[in-house]
Amino acid sequence: MAQTSQNKKDLAQARTKTNFDITDMTNYLYGGAANVEQRRYIIDLIAREPIFNKDDWPWLNHTDAVKRGIAMSTRLAEIKMEHELNDLDFATMVEAIDDTLPILLHNGAFIPVINSQGSDEQIEKWIPLAEKYQIIGCYAQTELGHGSNLSQLETTATFVQETDEWEINSTTFTAAKWWIGGLGAICTHAVVQAKLIIAGKDYGAHVFVVPIRSLDNHKPFPGIQVGDIGPKAYGGFNKMENGFARFNKYRIPRENMLMRFSKVSREGVYTKPPHAKLSYGSMVLLRSVLIRQMALYLSRATTISTRYLTVRRQFNNPTKRNDADINPGLETQVINYPMVQNRLFPMIAQSYALFAAGTVMMEMYIGLMTGLSSGNIDTLAEVHATSSALKSYCTTIAAAGAEECRKLMGGHGYSYFTGLAHMFASIVPSNTYEGDNYVLTQQMARYLLKEVKTARTTPNKVTPYSKYVLLALNKDEFTHARCSVTKAEDWLSPDVQLAVFEHRCARLATELSDDVDAAGGMEATTWSDHNIECYRISHAHAQYVMVLWFIQSIRDARNPETEEEHRASPEAIAILERLSNLHALHTIQTNLADFTEDAYFNPAQCQSLRAQVKALVASIADQAVGLVDAFDHPDFLLASALGASDGDAYQRLWDKAQTEPLNRREVCDGYEEYIRPLLKKHGELKL
Amino acid sequence: MAQTSQNKKDLAQARTKTNFDITDMTNYLYGGAANVEQRRYIIDLIAREPIFNKDDWPWLNHTDAVKRGIAMSTRLAEIKMEHELNDLDFATMVEAIDDTLPILLHNGAFIPVINSQGSDEQIEKWIPLAEKYQIIGCYAQTELGHGSNLSQLETTATFVQETDEWEINSTTFTAAKWWIGGLGAICTHAVVQAKLIIAGKDYGAHVFVVPIRSLDNHKPFPGIQVGDIGPKAYGGFNKMENGFARFNKYRIPRENMLMRFSKVSREGVYTKPPHAKLSYGSMVLLRSVLIRQMALYLSRATTISTRYLTVRRQFNNPTKRNDADINPGLETQVINYPMVQNRLFPMIAQSYALFAAGTVMMEMYIGLMTGLSSGNIDTLAEVHATSSALKSYCTTIAAAGAEECRKLMGGHGYSYFTGLAHMFASIVPSNTYEGDNYVLTQQMARYLLKEVKTARTTPNKVTPYSKYVLLALNKDEFTHARCSVTKAEDWLSPDVQLAVFEHRCARLATELSDDVDAAGGMEATTWSDHNIECYRISHAHAQYVMVLWFIQSIRDARNPETEEEHRASPEAIAILERLSNLHALHTIQTNLADFTEDAYFNPAQCQSLRAQVKALVASIADQAVGLVDAFDHPDFLLASALGASDGDAYQRLWDKAQTEPLNRREVCDGYEEYIRPLLKKHGELKL
Repeated sequence: MAQTSQNKKDLAQARTKTNFDITDMTNYLYGGAANVEQRRYIIDLIAREPIFNKDDWPWLNHTDAVKRGIAMSTRLAEIKMEHELNDLDFATMVEAIDDTLPILLHNGAFIPVINSQGSDEQIEKWIPLAEKYQIIGCYAQTELGHGSNLSQLETTATFVQETDEWEINSTTFTAAKWWIGGLGAICTHAVVQAKLIIAGKDYGAHVFVVPIRSLDNHKPFPGIQVGDIGPKAYGGFNKMENGFARFNKYRIPRENMLMRFSKVSREGVYTKPPHAKLSYGSMVLLRSVLIRQMALYLSRATTISTRYLTVRRQFNNPTKRNDADINPGLETQVINYPMVQNRLFPMIAQSYALFAAGTVMMEMYIGLMTGLSSGNIDTLAEVHATSSALKSYCTTIAAAGAEECRKLMGGHGYSYFTGLAHMFASIVPSNTYEGDNYVLTQQMARYLLKEVKTARTTPNKVTPYSKYVLLALNKDEFTHARCSVTKAEDWLSPDVQLAVFEHRCARLATELSDDVDAAGGMEATTWSDHNIECYRISHAHAQYVMVLWFIQSIRDARNPETEEEHRASPEAIAILERLSNLHALHTIQTNLADFTEDAYFNPAQCQSLRAQVKALVASIADQAVGLVDAFDHPDFLLASALGASDGDAYQRLWDKAQTEPLNRREVCDGYEEYIRPLLKKHGELKL
Repeated sequence: MAQTSQNKKDLAQARTKTNFDITDMTNYLYGGAANVEQRRYIIDLIAREPIFNKDDWPWLNHTDAVKRGIAMSTRLAEIKMEHELNDLDFATMVEAIDDTLPILLHNGAFIPVINSQGSDEQIEKWIPLAEKYQIIGCYAQTELGHGSNLSQLETTATFVQETDEWEINSTTFTAAKWWIGGLGAICTHAVVQAKLIIAGKDYGAHVFVVPIRSLDNHKPFPGIQVGDIGPKAYGGFNKMENGFARFNKYRIPRENMLMRFSKVSREGVYTKPPHAKLSYGSMVLLRSVLIRQMALYLSRATTISTRYLTVRRQFNNPTKRNDADINPGLETQVINYPMVQNRLFPMIAQSYALFAAGTVMMEMYIGLMTGLSSGNIDTLAEVHATSSALKSYCTTIAAAGAEECRKLMGGHGYSYFTGLAHMFASIVPSNTYEGDNYVLTQQMARYLLKEVKTARTTPNKVTPYSKYVLLALNKDEFTHARCSVTKAEDWLSPDVQLAVFEHRCARLATELSDDVDAAGGMEATTWSDHNIECYRISHAHAQYVMVLWFIQSIRDARNPETEEEHRASPEAIAILERLSNLHALHTIQTNLADFTEDAYFNPAQCQSLRAQVKALVASIADQAVGLVDAFDHPDFLLASALGASDGDAYQRLWDKAQTEPLNRREVCDGYEEYIRPLLKKHGELKL
């Protein structure tokens, strides 16, 4: 098996070139050694449980997969209770399991909704039951006919004063709840969004705790038609029973309405909530968490791709080999081709930037919640807009990146055993859930329009991340603004990079503002007419803060006054700075027209930018394997024949193929029935 | 079911706005009524056969799917024989079946290779057996360690003079044949690429007919280890048993080497082929066929998306509704949002452009083969380069387009029942097979470099499609060339559009040529150092010919001297021209930096271009449903709950969910084993 050991040798040899301390880099990424330790402990906890073994996943159909998902769900619940794990550890367990389970909606939606929207008595009643899994819940908002448009939901909850009950009803065919994770099989209860109706008056969507299945025998209660909506795209969410439900005048007690904010009395008197935006916090949390998840996903994808392309050799290109000690008869390692490096390395840089963004986003969220708890809503609008813009941008690049990493692996990339197809299938729904990535960009755009207005009236009130709107206050001057770069090295200045992104954001925000004003202002305009521009400015802003936060994270890491867990060694800093430059400049190059269409860049700058990106990419080459090793993703998590840590790609691909159930038979099923009759149709043949 | 009929009403209403004759447009797309008729006949033939029913596909695991693939394969073979269908009809059957079957390699590779590389006697021996399916073949080139790099294949065929045999051997672990469709289960024979060795001398890769399984009992012959390589990404190619094979000094007769070109005598004397490039024809064919396939795929994807988004209503946006007769209480049809239109309609235009490109590419191929048959290789280089560039570009946009159409459908887009996930999984391997889309772009780049040289020495010898290189002959003048557009309408001139594309191609080709010259010329340079630029110029050229051919196709359709089957009515021409404009300008906008980075466009032109694209998109809106109806894809082919011709999306999605096998049980499998113990862990609970 000479070639096999060549694979291992290639990866080992690549590791010898790493010129920074991997442990140091890993600690930087995860915010300190204690976090790294804990993450490893939790992943190992999962890896040791047979029920979480992933080997037979490619052969499970939806029926088998859902049963597996149930078994995994209940074991996950048990482990959580046994080890009394907190939310962060629970998230790491979910990361390690690497598939979406129905129980996640119990912990991720059912409990939080009750906690945030239930009265103290309701919390006291339901939460202990839920935390001990004596009931299992899900969250039922989406319907067949409506997604995020809460105001048009067709499920009704009508107050029946005689019996002090709500009558839950699917008024129309399209009122059926749809896509509800956990509803198809495991849940006993659901938090249901329904239009609250009292004496014929519609008070809009409210939430109700609705018993779905009997605690005696798990049968759905009469008046509820419930089931699984069927398989998902790309085999994604296969272990999840996304369900549907139709309610036929189904009765629940009045007190099952969650009444922290809105209330309905025994007499049917409705009291409205004090603040309309108090429920924004949970949306911000969901979106903020996604940023960190995308960092974990894209870093896994680049790990797999980088390792495989380091051991894959194809075509003999003597000048492309930098391994002088290796047999000159060997072909070139695929990772040594500039085209491959130019596709792959920017995604490694992006992964690092996503880690930084995930950290800052969570800090912003925590700051917001701290503020909200003392009645301070000053940062709500900014944090809401930022989390929306980043959710849209980061989930888009992570899904596209996973698929790009797969395609980078060439022919073998189409094997299930890369681990990347499963990953893409898991990431890509995030592009349409928690706010469709296109629709969601309105949030940042609306926010920036207000900032432009503020800039024009009270410029000192513009918030920090959108200070750039001030650049465009003098329109004539701004139209003639030009990028300051005169020589190639200028591109490597973080301040130049930030100025470039700020210029673009300022231009797009101001142009949008002028368009909206021309159409009669924010109230009068048809908002969706500006959605293309909203998308552009929102992604431009997301790229700007991604670049900014990565730069700041490195500055902090270099600062001796920073807490130790966020510092890094000079060797690590040096490579991080290259990654940050690559991330910033590659992002500019990918969106180059945004910087040229107003003549902000001149032709010479475009040329030197492209050259600088190429040079930065080449400068990462020797560090690529070390950089992905630093992500610290164990083989159990990667679940990839081609991206395992020992580099033994061909042997593992071969071994995986031998586990294919079809290979248990010498002659295929279907021979006697189909193949033989065809072969013998024209009589026996002897060759 | 009021909402259901609203879905149908919406689609019917949209159809009333069509202002051209659908039949006329369909005939234009398929080259005349006779072709349309025949395609319908063949698709119906397949639709009527129960074995080709697609309803249970989402629930088949790989084991079940392969058995189904075998049954479908043999039935396909029978139908082909029963009806004596030609290659074009066979291709339509494959289109209708809509999944990759192992038998396709028999007809698409095994037979063609023997026909093109076998001697007359070999053709006489093998082809009749293959055409009657008395043997079933596959084509074994790729190995575990090597893809398209033929020269490095590790399988050997060593001549054994004593017995007049070849000894086929997998010399190393990585020599195992891998990814071979049909090898895993159904084939009895394989055409195997192996290095020919006589008396220790290596003559490079040649092809051999190798018996794999016994015609008596289908067991693999001793000396061959054969099996299935396992599932593929995204559940793609699930019915195909892509196989592996290792040969252990396996003997076959000398005459099983295909000897049309190279020959080996009884005495072991090797005779080399007269022309090295004679085998290019089959590569060109495979790539040319792919262009047409991509037209069919992308047009199906846009059909599904357009219909669903016409019936899906979300949010109430009064100014966005253009259906005055519809109940004002209804929400806005999603297709009426500009962002949606700006994402979707350019893909409809692209589909039309792909149809035109597919037609021209096949004509080029036929012209080439006619030439070759009389020894004329004049067009070989151009046709080879063009088919490579188009294969790379068209398969890229079709795969991305299918996924974009899926995402356009929002939340429900993640259901398997859209039909689009299966489609993406089927298209996307084309991005890496038949030449990886990145590597393949070298072909066009190399060709254009020669054209640049030709332009500089003998300008009258430049071939038609690359005449643009002449533009850049005078470098100083060319550097100062500026786009001629002064007002928005100028963008609508096909000549202006072509000039714009030609300028960009000329610039990129000349820049690459200068870079290569600076590096010492084509022979001295490390070719892969220029792969990024190769990719850019190859896609730029592909976009140019796509735009050109679509324009020409419409000019032909308007010309009274054109044969009737390629003509179209004035109403159809009018909308085709809008599509062509949209296709050209949207392609420019998507690649805007390529036109701004050398200051060829000025800021005002960029603004008017964006405005013109928006206006063109809006101008298609009323015709969208008619335009996708004209693709003439029947419901059987679409296999989509959301994109069916009657528009009854919600009802069909509901009905599909009811067929989910999980829903046959009232209480899910796994309740007693997993859920109940968890719920009861802390004792019985009564609520």
